[in-house]
Amino acid sequence: MGSLASFDEVENVFSNNVNPLDPEEFRSQGHMIIDFLADYYQNIQKYPVLSQVEPGYLVKRLPTTAPYVAEPVEAILQDVQQHIIPGITHWQSPNYFAYFPSSGSVAGFLGEMLSTGFNVVGFNWISSPAATELESIVMDWLGQMLDLPRAFLFSGNGGGVLQGTTCEAILCTVTAARDRMLLKVGRDNIGKLVVYASDQTHSALAKAAKIAGIDPKNFRAIKTKKSAAFGLSPESLRHAISIDVKAGLIPLYLCATIGTTSTTAVDPLIPLCDVAKEYGMWVHVDAAYAGSASICPEFRHFIDGVEGADSFSLNAHKWFFTTLDCCCMWVKDPSSLIKSLSTNPEYLRNKASDSKQVVDYKDWQITLSRRFRAMKLWLVLRRYGVANLRNFLRGHVKMAKRFEDLVAGDGRFEVVVPRYFAMVCFRVPPSALPFRNQVGNDETRANEFNRELLETVNAAGRIYMTHAEVDGIYMLRFAVGASLTEDKHVIMAWKVVQETVDAMLNTL
Amino acid sequence: MGSLASFDEVENVFSNNVNPLDPEEFRSQGHMIIDFLADYYQNIQKYPVLSQVEPGYLVKRLPTTAPYVAEPVEAILQDVQQHIIPGITHWQSPNYFAYFPSSGSVAGFLGEMLSTGFNVVGFNWISSPAATELESIVMDWLGQMLDLPRAFLFSGNGGGVLQGTTCEAILCTVTAARDRMLLKVGRDNIGKLVVYASDQTHSALAKAAKIAGIDPKNFRAIKTKKSAAFGLSPESLRHAISIDVKAGLIPLYLCATIGTTSTTAVDPLIPLCDVAKEYGMWVHVDAAYAGSASICPEFRHFIDGVEGADSFSLNAHKWFFTTLDCCCMWVKDPSSLIKSLSTNPEYLRNKASDSKQVVDYKDWQITLSRRFRAMKLWLVLRRYGVANLRNFLRGHVKMAKRFEDLVAGDGRFEVVVPRYFAMVCFRVPPSALPFRNQVGNDETRANEFNRELLETVNAAGRIYMTHAEVDGIYMLRFAVGASLTEDKHVIMAWKVVQETVDAMLNTL
Repeated sequence: MGSLASFDEVENVFSNNVNPLDPEEFRSQGHMIIDFLADYYQNIQKYPVLSQVEPGYLVKRLPTTAPYVAEPVEAILQDVQQHIIPGITHWQSPNYFAYFPSSGSVAGFLGEMLSTGFNVVGFNWISSPAATELESIVMDWLGQMLDLPRAFLFSGNGGGVLQGTTCEAILCTVTAARDRMLLKVGRDNIGKLVVYASDQTHSALAKAAKIAGIDPKNFRAIKTKKSAAFGLSPESLRHAISIDVKAGLIPLYLCATIGTTSTTAVDPLIPLCDVAKEYGMWVHVDAAYAGSASICPEFRHFIDGVEGADSFSLNAHKWFFTTLDCCCMWVKDPSSLIKSLSTNPEYLRNKASDSKQVVDYKDWQITLSRRFRAMKLWLVLRRYGVANLRNFLRGHVKMAKRFEDLVAGDGRFEVVVPRYFAMVCFRVPPSALPFRNQVGNDETRANEFNRELLETVNAAGRIYMTHAEVDGIYMLRFAVGASLTEDKHVIMAWKVVQETVDAMLNTL
Repeated sequence: MGSLASFDEVENVFSNNVNPLDPEEFRSQGHMIIDFLADYYQNIQKYPVLSQVEPGYLVKRLPTTAPYVAEPVEAILQDVQQHIIPGITHWQSPNYFAYFPSSGSVAGFLGEMLSTGFNVVGFNWISSPAATELESIVMDWLGQMLDLPRAFLFSGNGGGVLQGTTCEAILCTVTAARDRMLLKVGRDNIGKLVVYASDQTHSALAKAAKIAGIDPKNFRAIKTKKSAAFGLSPESLRHAISIDVKAGLIPLYLCATIGTTSTTAVDPLIPLCDVAKEYGMWVHVDAAYAGSASICPEFRHFIDGVEGADSFSLNAHKWFFTTLDCCCMWVKDPSSLIKSLSTNPEYLRNKASDSKQVVDYKDWQITLSRRFRAMKLWLVLRRYGVANLRNFLRGHVKMAKRFEDLVAGDGRFEVVVPRYFAMVCFRVPPSALPFRNQVGNDETRANEFNRELLETVNAAGRIYMTHAEVDGIYMLRFAVGASLTEDKHVIMAWKVVQETVDAMLNTL
């Protein structure tokens, strides 16, 4: 070991020999970061919401190699302030109205800290019983809050699990559905399996199906119509299935969405599940964004019919205050997941697992290692309670309604699709634009106008919205849900939109 | 909206109307948790390392529903102390020697706090340019530290990405390899694709291959031998491939491991890559545990030959201080990942992505949403620097060597396989046990004795180790790597083992 000794001699000069988890360093530096982040939230409105940097900005500002010698936390935080924050799109800003929210909260953050602090790897029960058991408990709690049928709860022989994201929830359930079907029809028929959804369904489904080995040409994105508010029509589904069945294909999986990404459209679960049932298909309900709202009695009806589905998921990191990532998924038949996803290597064997008295969540998901995510969901549920959580969500819906009213009150704008939750899709319609003497299609020109409107607004940095394009209509999406957003921010946002349109119309 | 108003009236009585991300609440409560966790680390040795609770302990202690009214943080923390901590297996304890380490550090924790605090959803560049650019930069830094061939770095037209875990890294690369091959041979041949590895390879591979639609009967776990220290023999690989090719099957993917889970065996990359190359297979190098060691020049030789592979991954959350989860993966040909995993829904379109000047990491992984994991890797690299990081790892290796020497110095024990890194596999061999007058196989009896030894040690709670069973030999695994572990803990652990064996032998 002579060479080891000589390496040591050189490098000890440059190393500080502090234990990497020294409790007092942890304490003093932890407090520094808390203050840094508290200040960040206090000053967040000073930054442009959408980062204004150019591609490649950071490589010009950072060294090309890792430092050889340790650097103080103060220096790193200074660089975070100077070099990282300018490159951040501030999802926590009260003026963030883009995509869907990434709803941070104090409780969610505290839960994440505890989870990270314990830093357990809860793949099976024995590796940290509390991680597994708390997860089962809070998933039953939240399932009850959503009024999910008992069949989805542990108390009803189903069960809930925390995935990272909806993409994982869908991939797990597609895989389980696939293996269940292949067992019946034989592996050779994998090329005949067909997955169904609407053309508004999240791209996660097509990707998951592809990863699971479903032939991409057997993915049906069934066309929706504006007249049905972009919900999936059961008749269209039945029609698509019947064509496939006649062609010798095998219907496998339907993904119905509650609150689509583009326009928060809602697929009608009851009739869709009826159709799927006839063909023995797996039905997954993707309520990634809008599912949370169902803890409010007045919004529960949107998931009516979930009793006919096999699995249901929502992203608590979207609109339920847990910080990324935390996807809540329930299944009626955990054994179908376990059959597809279990592994039992010798080095993980233990008495508790062998006894079959415990849940080993590694068999409910793609990965082996898993974080103690239940901690943050538990913190959110307890720190706020059902009453506050309902009111938080209602507050967002009310603010969106306020924005919708402002849009509707200005004759130059239109609300493009019905607003169900806390997102408004709007645009300046062709009728409001002085295009009549010009060549070209009015809709195309309106799309161009709205695209420019969005780009102008976002480039100014005061607010950030994104867009959707559905049925040929380009629209702006105004999604309320950032935790810091208050009425005044919504009103300011509307002013920014109006002023931008004023200026644009003046130069036309 | 009359019903909404009446709900409000009821629930406002029970809600506190505080903003869920109020900066001053964040500050005061954040400080509370920092102190709670600092105290936890200070007192961690007081707890049994392996949780001693019984299945179902927690459901008896917690309410059956979520609270309706908000609860104070103080009450929640009291419950964490009373009800959660007893159910935790303390991976951060200095007396934790089980599985592989889950190496927490102050810097990793601080990085996680910043990542959680900004709470951006960095699916594409525009959604937070700093998240993407910092990731590319630190992956090039770490790639250089490991002396990876330039072809794996962005500066050499490859590139690195942070996955959650190795399971995801393997699933992504299996999927990319599958699609590349199917493009050549046609989709109908998916049932002919074969995946190869040794019988020591992590169960992640079989699971990933199954998820990706590879027929489980086409998964080859090639037998390894004790005489080759459980490394995969290139001759055995070639033999297995040639049988498959003769049978009309198509070799697809080889997973070689640097530091297997059971015994930290090392597969010989150079000859394995040569064999794989002949058949046009994708080679992934899974260095989940041991890869980190290659930042030390004296351990770099273990990954010699990586230049012949297509992809390489290590878990920074195992033995590189980032906290769970943080899997570092590099590929030579990012386009093969992107071809399989990209999605381009309209609602994510933006000028930067359209310009093709930026990396959109969503197309390098399974999920769309992704956390700002680069922050913690950056913090770890800067806060400690290369010199400290090398010395941390060397410290663990030295402690394992110390333990190995102690085992070897006690005639009743044997070190079962060569120790390469910071993990020692040992047992009480049959020759040390007074079985000669009893019926039954000596090896079986030794296995029983060692199983009981491990259970007795773990039940006492002073240390926690796990086991492996390879080639019919049950052995105890002593993995050094918890950040708080010092020499004295290793020496104490050895005493615990010796005393337990003393007592067991006395009663035989």
